[in-house]
Amino acid sequence: MTPTNPLVQPLLTDLYQITMAYGYWRSGIHRKPAAFELFFRKNPFGGEYSIFAGLREALAFLESYRFADDDIAYLRSVPALAHVEDDFWDWLAAVDASELTVESMLEGTPAFPRIPLLRVEGPIAVAQLMETTLLNLINFSTLIATNAARMRYVAGDAATLMEFGIRRAQGPDGGMTATRSAVIGGFDSTSNVLAGKLMGIPVAGTHAHAFVQAFMELPDGPFTITDASGAGRDIRPILDRIITGDGAMTNMGELAAFLAYARSFPGSTLLLVDTYDTLGSGIPNAIRVFKVLRELGHAPVGIRLDSGDLAYLSREARRMLRDAGFGELKIVASNSINEGVLMELKSHQAEVDSFGVGTNLVTAEGEPALGGVYKLVELDGMPRIKISQEPAKITIPGRKHCYRLTGGDGSYLADVMTLEDEAPPAVGEPFLCRHPFVPGQRVRIVPSAVERLHITVFSGGKSLIGEEGIGEIRERSRQLQKGIRPDHRRALNPTPYKVSLSEGLFDYMYRLWEREAVVRTIQ
Amino acid sequence: MTPTNPLVQPLLTDLYQITMAYGYWRSGIHRKPAAFELFFRKNPFGGEYSIFAGLREALAFLESYRFADDDIAYLRSVPALAHVEDDFWDWLAAVDASELTVESMLEGTPAFPRIPLLRVEGPIAVAQLMETTLLNLINFSTLIATNAARMRYVAGDAATLMEFGIRRAQGPDGGMTATRSAVIGGFDSTSNVLAGKLMGIPVAGTHAHAFVQAFMELPDGPFTITDASGAGRDIRPILDRIITGDGAMTNMGELAAFLAYARSFPGSTLLLVDTYDTLGSGIPNAIRVFKVLRELGHAPVGIRLDSGDLAYLSREARRMLRDAGFGELKIVASNSINEGVLMELKSHQAEVDSFGVGTNLVTAEGEPALGGVYKLVELDGMPRIKISQEPAKITIPGRKHCYRLTGGDGSYLADVMTLEDEAPPAVGEPFLCRHPFVPGQRVRIVPSAVERLHITVFSGGKSLIGEEGIGEIRERSRQLQKGIRPDHRRALNPTPYKVSLSEGLFDYMYRLWEREAVVRTIQ
Repeated sequence: MTPTNPLVQPLLTDLYQITMAYGYWRSGIHRKPAAFELFFRKNPFGGEYSIFAGLREALAFLESYRFADDDIAYLRSVPALAHVEDDFWDWLAAVDASELTVESMLEGTPAFPRIPLLRVEGPIAVAQLMETTLLNLINFSTLIATNAARMRYVAGDAATLMEFGIRRAQGPDGGMTATRSAVIGGFDSTSNVLAGKLMGIPVAGTHAHAFVQAFMELPDGPFTITDASGAGRDIRPILDRIITGDGAMTNMGELAAFLAYARSFPGSTLLLVDTYDTLGSGIPNAIRVFKVLRELGHAPVGIRLDSGDLAYLSREARRMLRDAGFGELKIVASNSINEGVLMELKSHQAEVDSFGVGTNLVTAEGEPALGGVYKLVELDGMPRIKISQEPAKITIPGRKHCYRLTGGDGSYLADVMTLEDEAPPAVGEPFLCRHPFVPGQRVRIVPSAVERLHITVFSGGKSLIGEEGIGEIRERSRQLQKGIRPDHRRALNPTPYKVSLSEGLFDYMYRLWEREAVVRTIQ
Repeated sequence: MTPTNPLVQPLLTDLYQITMAYGYWRSGIHRKPAAFELFFRKNPFGGEYSIFAGLREALAFLESYRFADDDIAYLRSVPALAHVEDDFWDWLAAVDASELTVESMLEGTPAFPRIPLLRVEGPIAVAQLMETTLLNLINFSTLIATNAARMRYVAGDAATLMEFGIRRAQGPDGGMTATRSAVIGGFDSTSNVLAGKLMGIPVAGTHAHAFVQAFMELPDGPFTITDASGAGRDIRPILDRIITGDGAMTNMGELAAFLAYARSFPGSTLLLVDTYDTLGSGIPNAIRVFKVLRELGHAPVGIRLDSGDLAYLSREARRMLRDAGFGELKIVASNSINEGVLMELKSHQAEVDSFGVGTNLVTAEGEPALGGVYKLVELDGMPRIKISQEPAKITIPGRKHCYRLTGGDGSYLADVMTLEDEAPPAVGEPFLCRHPFVPGQRVRIVPSAVERLHITVFSGGKSLIGEEGIGEIRERSRQLQKGIRPDHRRALNPTPYKVSLSEGLFDYMYRLWEREAVVRTIQ
């Protein structure tokens, strides 16, 4: 596997990864076996779940990890690294990911705070070097997959969801990564052609306002459109009859544009109707063109609304289409759609079949970064803890096993982390789960199913999972998302999902915390 | 010039650009001369100014614009394009940007709403094809340059500002583009090594918490650090004396880590002090190491705070450093810094010399997308207008000249757009400026200087401006930003900046608006 974006390479990292690698090397501890966990502390968007994504690119990054000669030459030129010993550069030039082992969830899996998305094990200096790039790849992908899953949940399974964000995305890769992640979360298609080419995602799109503006009046003389049998037909007489029949005073440039579009795509005509006046011009003109197409034996596709009150306009549009015998056509809406707008449109009975979602989806406007971190949890067989002035920033020490406990109805009851040598939770047996930071909060769970959350996905320099199709990941996620209870999925004040520790891990963490923390005397 | 990101290519676009190109081609109007303007309607972050960036990458995109054979093959395989005529694909395969002319502001220029950032002229189908990619490249770059400029304004010229965002950036290119844009806006350096290599931006960084966690205790026996003369010195006796002298109960693993770091970078030691307890362990340990380094003839650099109350901790840190004779050292702060935090820290007399700004800078957390658009303003010599249900979405028609009018003190008074054939504003002469959408609002401005805002930057398939160094662009922006009045720069409720139309353009726009808009009858 190679990274989709050629910028994904060892130097796409923070300088301090290099200085730290040198610090480890200089101290002779660079080969000590270490375990790092990549996890987030808080779900985005005020929610109680996230959808893991970004693993494919992370594995491709690891597989291809190797400094180029000019990378090393550049590093040697950095003033801060001027006094680094030559042998270090030889060591660095030989580093690859062959000594690393990665355990991970699979892409599309619902994920919860503090449960590692993945764990990287290997020589500390090497595992450390991966931090920044892995975070970059996984933070953003997971953020957007989560955003997409939330929109899909609100829009319902029947709606078509199209990702339209590339023009407002945070850079080219913002567009590419966002597109892929949106599909993992539950979107159907994208406007992004390169994502279609490189990732096999279905592409969608019709025309913009500029196309409508580009036509000023109906051309004189005959106007030929191919009919369903493939023969060219002058539609002028049909059109004249229709215009005379409805007598509507519409913008003629718009009508000319619609006809030009219909001539280009007679079998798949979807028209943007808000360039001049949605109800006064756009929809009447669209209906004229749909009537022409129907007389030619074509089935028109629908209209797109891109401004104004989408609830009102979509209902009016449906009424006008229905009155003209086109009630079954698709109505697409696409202006500043986000999770809240989707909810509002639903509650106002908007007549929208399909949503084009751009900016809010791909930039995660409500919360444009996932704060995933990559923390050392074990070194040389010793669990490590990172304590902090801020208790929320404390890391849960040690390599651990993580399980998802499921109830009889297939919904997730809790995720639980245990010490590696503890007995795992067992089906039908009560298991005591402790809140990691509220010592009084405990619950006994009797699971109907118990699932290990991680598998080994990388070892010996190679990904152990094949290149998965995007459709496969999307379908897996769709199935797994069904296990998230509606009260955890709710947009407003969702029920907290239980992320817990076993009794053993809980005791262990608190012992280590007290051992490492300094007790200051205040007087 | 080639794009920094190889994903910047013709297919990095919306599908509808291809369908529209076909629509133009099929209608035989694809070669009609057109002018498109790229502009935004609203400054981000509730501000009254923006900083233009992204032109370099846009020009590189245009220079290299050409579909590859497998791009065309992919497009032919897209179901929506199944019935496209073969001749169109031949035409598309031959398209490049050689017939386009681009006028633009230079990067780093303060920009205001509705004043075009750039104008693209050429055959309509070709100019149209550039839309999505240009928007992607310029929207995000301008957003981040603006964010950086706002932070620089609040932090003041004396502060060092470092971009630390890559781990939370929206994808790899979010990191790269954001880094470059941050520097254009006024940042000094970045942690992003690849940006250092590819763009010549100074790189900065030291170590993370993991490095501190990786050391558990002071190693036994001698501990050698190179002194200023280059000789290895066992610092054990010095250290023992210092520890006995201060008697502080600190975390010994942390001290070991600091020593390991100092051994690696004795001439540039900057220590992260919040892994266990900032005041109780981190700073006392850092001071011990600084004392050791001083005895070896080295000048230590400083400390970094990454959690807790940065105002309080920085003041305490300064006091502790000063008491130990290290009052001049740098204090770096880096946890969730944004514009508001910078203002707060200033108002609380925080003792911070240098800020590492990550997530909030590179994702523009307050407003993660700039809503730049690309609108057809002229076709075949005829001005085009796009009207809308939403007056704010109306475009100002026609190719225009844009001027910045400056007062006697060098500050910007207004930007004004005129028809191409109107007399330009003249120094010392009153010029009537009209608000574009509030007919009653007019002002007469007597400028002390008048500047054309655009120059021709692309023609004949080539950029007409050389590859500019990032430092050059940054310095130009710094100079130009001085012209923005403090009341326009203010974070809260800034004075609206005047973006105006000449009398001629104003009249023209309203005539065209009335001509194109349908008057609906409501009964």
